Amino acid sequence: MSDLSERIAERVISIPDYPRKGVIFRDIMPIAADAELFHDIIAELAARHTGERIDRVVAIESRGFVFGGALANELKCGFTPIRKAGKLPRETIRETYQLEYGEGTIELQKDALAPGARVILVDDLLATGGTVNAAIRLIQRLGAEVTAADFVIELGFLSPRSNIRGCSRIHTLLTYD
Amino acid sequence: MSDLSERIAERVISIPDYPRKGVIFRDIMPIAADAELFHDIIAELAARHTGERIDRVVAIESRGFVFGGALANELKCGFTPIRKAGKLPRETIRETYQLEYGEGTIELQKDALAPGARVILVDDLLATGGTVNAAIRLIQRLGAEVTAADFVIELGFLSPRSNIRGCSRIHTLLTYD
Repeated sequence: MSDLSERIAERVISIPDYPRKGVIFRDIMPIAADAELFHDIIAELAARHTGERIDRVVAIESRGFVFGGALANELKCGFTPIRKAGKLPRETIRETYQLEYGEGTIELQKDALAPGARVILVDDLLATGGTVNAAIRLIQRLGAEVTAADFVIELGFLSPRSNIRGCSRIHTLLTYD
Repeated sequence: MSDLSERIAERVISIPDYPRKGVIFRDIMPIAADAELFHDIIAELAARHTGERIDRVVAIESRGFVFGGALANELKCGFTPIRKAGKLPRETIRETYQLEYGEGTIELQKDALAPGARVILVDDLLATGGTVNAAIRLIQRLGAEVTAADFVIELGFLSPRSNIRGCSRIHTLLTYD
């Protein structure tokens, strides 16, 4: 485990049986609250895109906005949100994905990305990859390309990497096996 | 109007009668999507805190996270979220504020801020100031101090500055009179 992974692991607060029995919730907010760690996380994610042309950071509501906003500014590229259904004004496109019980729907504004745009997709935590796949489909429907997907934490025991379609470059800083 | 204000005004998309008749909704997402403008906004907000000791950026869910996350990283300080009720794990404190119809509740984690911490409060848009006042109360209840509140847009015709209590330094980059 790298030094940065260890520092992240030390800050994550694990909450057993939350939001329901058998699930360990990972509270990552103490990571962002630690000034030096937050800065180092953004610097490390940015370093993985050195010399690349990136047109936009697209992040998933709402913890993804914290890391995505900072990364967009660090890379000097624009920021675009993917939000839960019903929260974006004007014309949107939407995708639905399976949740453990029922389904979720996310949206992207129809004019948010230009065809051919090179996009980094950002969220705080990679779990099953269901939301990420829906986000990738939204980005691709606008003709843009997901050149990489960046996360702080990966729940490796859910095997998200084998589920993700449409993006072969996945960066995560700490994996729970 | 400054050059930066003008550039922001050019990017905002105004939607009449949304979400209901008589209201003009300001879609600010095109501001963040413009790489140069987003970068200049964060640089300008950061410049207003040059030489100050800032311990934490606290931002209000969820568009505030985009600007707050970027500003925290730019100022090399930590980030803490204020979220709508029911979204933060572990022990929280909450405040309720009036909405046009009914009321809203926001929360902050109880261990999020140390007493005496110097905090900048960030959101995308300052309207009546109701949410901002509730956010200031949350921060003050943990013994921390709101040294400034920074917003991209101010709806000046709603007179928010005369409503805000507990923070006399308010920065906004574009005002709609």
